[in-house]
Amino acid sequence: MALFIAPIKYENGRLYLLDQTLLPGQETYQEITTKEDLWDSIYKLKVRGAPAIGVAAAYGMAVCSRAIQANDLGEFAEKFYELKEHIASSRPTAVNLFWALNRMESRLLSLEAQIAGISSWKEQFAFIQLMLLDEAEQIRKEDEEACYAMGEHGLSLLKKGMGILTHCNAGTIATAKYGTCLAPLYLGQERNFDFRVFADETRPLLQGARLTAWELHKAGIDVTLICDNMASIVMKNGWVDAVVVGCDRMAANGDGANKIGTSGLAILAKEYGIPFYMFVPTSTIDLNTSTGKDIHIEERKGEEIYKMWYEKPMAPEGIKTYNPAFDVTDAKYITAVVTEKGVVYPPYDLNLPKLFSHSL
Amino acid sequence: MALFIAPIKYENGRLYLLDQTLLPGQETYQEITTKEDLWDSIYKLKVRGAPAIGVAAAYGMAVCSRAIQANDLGEFAEKFYELKEHIASSRPTAVNLFWALNRMESRLLSLEAQIAGISSWKEQFAFIQLMLLDEAEQIRKEDEEACYAMGEHGLSLLKKGMGILTHCNAGTIATAKYGTCLAPLYLGQERNFDFRVFADETRPLLQGARLTAWELHKAGIDVTLICDNMASIVMKNGWVDAVVVGCDRMAANGDGANKIGTSGLAILAKEYGIPFYMFVPTSTIDLNTSTGKDIHIEERKGEEIYKMWYEKPMAPEGIKTYNPAFDVTDAKYITAVVTEKGVVYPPYDLNLPKLFSHSL
Repeated sequence: MALFIAPIKYENGRLYLLDQTLLPGQETYQEITTKEDLWDSIYKLKVRGAPAIGVAAAYGMAVCSRAIQANDLGEFAEKFYELKEHIASSRPTAVNLFWALNRMESRLLSLEAQIAGISSWKEQFAFIQLMLLDEAEQIRKEDEEACYAMGEHGLSLLKKGMGILTHCNAGTIATAKYGTCLAPLYLGQERNFDFRVFADETRPLLQGARLTAWELHKAGIDVTLICDNMASIVMKNGWVDAVVVGCDRMAANGDGANKIGTSGLAILAKEYGIPFYMFVPTSTIDLNTSTGKDIHIEERKGEEIYKMWYEKPMAPEGIKTYNPAFDVTDAKYITAVVTEKGVVYPPYDLNLPKLFSHSL
Repeated sequence: MALFIAPIKYENGRLYLLDQTLLPGQETYQEITTKEDLWDSIYKLKVRGAPAIGVAAAYGMAVCSRAIQANDLGEFAEKFYELKEHIASSRPTAVNLFWALNRMESRLLSLEAQIAGISSWKEQFAFIQLMLLDEAEQIRKEDEEACYAMGEHGLSLLKKGMGILTHCNAGTIATAKYGTCLAPLYLGQERNFDFRVFADETRPLLQGARLTAWELHKAGIDVTLICDNMASIVMKNGWVDAVVVGCDRMAANGDGANKIGTSGLAILAKEYGIPFYMFVPTSTIDLNTSTGKDIHIEERKGEEIYKMWYEKPMAPEGIKTYNPAFDVTDAKYITAVVTEKGVVYPPYDLNLPKLFSHSL
């Protein structure tokens, strides 16, 4: 059995979040009891990865709403809404966060008929608490199932003993469990696939070194840490049979935005004749965005490049920088898109929409 | 006029080396008076870059040999040889170091006839000192001229206002002056070419951030620091019109070994239709090495990746790493080779040897 580190734990009525900012040096879980704890954890990236943020926010709403003082569902729902808006402000660009918060609120509002038959507000309140926890648990379970399915579909593309290169962290600690592009590596480990994994360190925030290398190493998977600029020689050496990466947003034509550096890897993979697989939960596919050109790329502070992590600055005072958080990989470089519903091949503009018509 | 930072200064009979390990935070010149100073400076990479090491070693031999106690040329030459062997042990893979040391020794040995007419050993000794300094000065001057010539030839390939991407540091502080691949940028600055330069930080040793960004910024050249994995998006944005890199060793077929990450850049440049120029002093071309496969790639400690520079380790204890210092760029990705004798185009296996027959 693979070892899965849980980014979110709910045990004996208490919620704990793994503080990912302290990795890999310290593995510390922080209990979340107040809305301040929750807001802070999301804002400071203690919990990160779109699916993990959604799950953490859902449990967080269930736990933090215990402190709401109200006399009936109407008053409770009003204060629940205020709480939701507050938590939503912790990371204003995280679509998955809003989605999870809204889902919790919808569940709450759906309870009106159900609690009508319960006599006291005290008992109604207890019932509401149970249902909110149930919703959080469902969100967690659905994400876990989606990741597991992506793992199965991904694994169908891989063979025993393969060398696999990955970038950034789309692993178990970025999701409820399994991860997206790391899911097939965990499933492969359970089935003796004996993968040899190469993890790009992923500058400037080092998610590959701090998180991917850490979680795979801890799980006992054979992982080798390299600098981003070593991917070319590792491929040339014949050590890589497939590249697996996550995706932050995919356009209708199959162009996919992911962590900075992904597009370069895809071009190298093509040149060396290595398949390049992007792992994309269907919730990440936006058919209303026609191509990657319409995806806005967040630019971050230059200090992340020359100051953060270091004992002393590594570039001259006043240096100009360019620090995009993501880049867009053109559809033409993506061998296949792995979703929880199955593997999609080009032409993506024709085949991605089928994922959604199937589910209708 | 461009501002050139000298890695080696000889002023009023004294030798000073810029301590490049302290850059970019501190610009400190250390005076070299003893063989221990000299050995230490080369061993600890205070002076780096093949041409700069050669020049430093040459001046260093001239200065350190002042302390040699001898009664005649024979005795002096014996102790000079011991000194030379000692300095050569400071960096056993630096071909340029041995070349410069041997050249100093040859000059010394050539003096026998010249000093025959000088009566006292004291006067002979003074004359020897002058001649050794003269040889060091010639080595410096030849390197400066070669770099200037590479600058002119390189500039002939570039146009005003171009965006130029470079990797690692093949700049003025790696040579006597001008640098190899940065030489055309300095000459361009003097002629109002208004280049916009992008400097890869160059993991793991950060020569791009610490040295290239620093020397270009100091010279007033428009330079933007990026992480290595951002080269693809910068090219895709249309900001790069040419890539210029140095070379540590070129095989007879045009395959060129250079700082790790260079081969990936070359592939990206090809994919985006951007010319890729490698700057290769003819002393770096080894016609006895038939292809890049015959070039041995040095592997270095993993700590450079996850521990060096940082306040705390950035990967889990016991992580496996792969840390090659160089990679080989296949000749097919190199648009042109810029040497001090001119620009060489493919087919390299036919055209590189012509550089040497011309000089015969």
